[in-house]
Amino acid sequence: MPPGLKDVARQAGVSIKTVSNVVNGYLHVAPDTRARVQKAIAELGYRPNVAARQLRGGRSGVIALALPELRSAYFAELAGSIVKAAEERHWTVLIDQTDGSAERERGLVSRLRRHLIDGLIFSPLGMAGPELAADASDTPMVLLGERVWHGPADHVAIDNTAAAAEATRHLCELGRRRIAAIGAQDAPTAVTARQRLAGFEAALAEAGRRADPGLVAHVEEFHRADGAAAMARLLDSGDPPDAVFCFNDLLAIGAIRTLLDRGYAVPGDVAVIGFDDIEEGRFSSPTLSTVSPDVDRIARTAVDLLAERLDLPRGEDAPAPREVRIEHRVVVRESTLGRLAARRV
Amino acid sequence: MPPGLKDVARQAGVSIKTVSNVVNGYLHVAPDTRARVQKAIAELGYRPNVAARQLRGGRSGVIALALPELRSAYFAELAGSIVKAAEERHWTVLIDQTDGSAERERGLVSRLRRHLIDGLIFSPLGMAGPELAADASDTPMVLLGERVWHGPADHVAIDNTAAAAEATRHLCELGRRRIAAIGAQDAPTAVTARQRLAGFEAALAEAGRRADPGLVAHVEEFHRADGAAAMARLLDSGDPPDAVFCFNDLLAIGAIRTLLDRGYAVPGDVAVIGFDDIEEGRFSSPTLSTVSPDVDRIARTAVDLLAERLDLPRGEDAPAPREVRIEHRVVVRESTLGRLAARRV
Repeated sequence: MPPGLKDVARQAGVSIKTVSNVVNGYLHVAPDTRARVQKAIAELGYRPNVAARQLRGGRSGVIALALPELRSAYFAELAGSIVKAAEERHWTVLIDQTDGSAERERGLVSRLRRHLIDGLIFSPLGMAGPELAADASDTPMVLLGERVWHGPADHVAIDNTAAAAEATRHLCELGRRRIAAIGAQDAPTAVTARQRLAGFEAALAEAGRRADPGLVAHVEEFHRADGAAAMARLLDSGDPPDAVFCFNDLLAIGAIRTLLDRGYAVPGDVAVIGFDDIEEGRFSSPTLSTVSPDVDRIARTAVDLLAERLDLPRGEDAPAPREVRIEHRVVVRESTLGRLAARRV
Repeated sequence: MPPGLKDVARQAGVSIKTVSNVVNGYLHVAPDTRARVQKAIAELGYRPNVAARQLRGGRSGVIALALPELRSAYFAELAGSIVKAAEERHWTVLIDQTDGSAERERGLVSRLRRHLIDGLIFSPLGMAGPELAADASDTPMVLLGERVWHGPADHVAIDNTAAAAEATRHLCELGRRRIAAIGAQDAPTAVTARQRLAGFEAALAEAGRRADPGLVAHVEEFHRADGAAAMARLLDSGDPPDAVFCFNDLLAIGAIRTLLDRGYAVPGDVAVIGFDDIEEGRFSSPTLSTVSPDVDRIARTAVDLLAERLDLPRGEDAPAPREVRIEHRVVVRESTLGRLAARRV
């Protein structure tokens, strides 16, 4: 018979509870006690019995977080916030990068099922609602982002369209006349881009104007290089814009770089506003005006919703999927207000 | 008896191999076939048999990556590179953020053991060599970064001290006289900071100078805000530096922001060089001179070393731990050369 907790406890001269604390990675075990237990574990070749644990239906204390890409600062910062919120519940978070591909997202759910995760926080890009419903059947899940509304699981997001309209309205209020957008995408799964474009157009319509199709720049991805290239195309097209709403901060930072390289003043010649409020935009030159979603609140809400489902007494019906909208605000900085005005805000 | 692969295959009208491909999340299954299999899985309530898989000693196709923090762009970009390199081997990467705390790092190894991971790529900050040795006994592991040399496992890193000396030498060659450093740390575990400071001092000594202790700024963490605050202290101290070597790019970006806010020209008054070559520094204004480790090479090497251990035929002795040094180079941009000169590089 393979060695059990009891054997390790005897060998180390500690209680079974202490061995269990070490095995579970709890933080309050004294270093020398921990060392003694680890030595006994190694000597006896003890391995925690995963299968038994699973059969008992116990918790693993581990949740998974599936995100499109960590290279994108917004998702990296969101991941950091979720890890922090989960830590308060003594949960470990394992992160899976899906690249936003529907194929990888599909594989994800079945891959994760083979692991002892208690639940999943998932920011899907490629998969659609009905498909998620089929997969969500038995792993408690919280969805993040604008991809799925009224889907099969709890869902946390900001109002993208309203936020995009507010950003555009800010540019109108500065008296700008030729307002461009960078970040349009045509793919049917490009929900973020579509919602932000809708908000942009709505704000212009409200101001009695129509979006000039020549001022709407498409991008492949939401990275700095895409923003830089899109801005170059807008400038090359003849009649340059005097303001740009970029659908995320990375696009805006790329666009600003192109403007400065070409000798345009920001915001003197062209005002630029982004979306996400990543830390980079608080230190860039000029600092970046942007839409700031309350990321810590998004993270905490997702963790709380998941915890509620996990704490559900056995036999009690799970609540219907909940939709939670998180606050956002427009933060104005140097890239639209200029240096001196931004300091007075 | 619970339903097996065979039952799912019969119900879906496909081969067992196809069901296995769907369950394992492989990418080459046709969408309608996948849908049929998923439907059968849902109808029959099939669950892959984790315990059986483990007893067979099979592979899970999942590796873990443990990093100090995703909020730090270098680690986020490194994670992206590792996921990409692992994808070519059809591995899934689960990422765990340790916050660099020794306690969390200790918990990590035992937490991960309970999961079906084939191996671990680990960038430790808090744990020391001997302790890692005790934990590394049976999970194949590759260590990243400068924390542990000649440790218990394969190790991939650049030569930090040499790289820091090269960055400092670049500032000397520009004719700068009062060269400061931002990023010193006193904690016994702060190996990165210590190595980069040693390289800084070595390059100054080589140029016949001594590091002025008043020009070595300490930081709590390697974030933008720490760099901004450290630069402010250097400027307030009376005799400001004319060049600064920052121990990472985030510190450099914070330092530049403070310099510009106070009306100093970069590099006119103060030249600034960082370390890491994160994408942000290629788009910032000014663009950032830096030490560029070959991150893709680090990622690929770590994955290759892990694969070699995993592919080891049963019964064959594992090779002794290997030390692999990865190339780096100094990339000079506007923050040390100025705009026009940087364009000619």
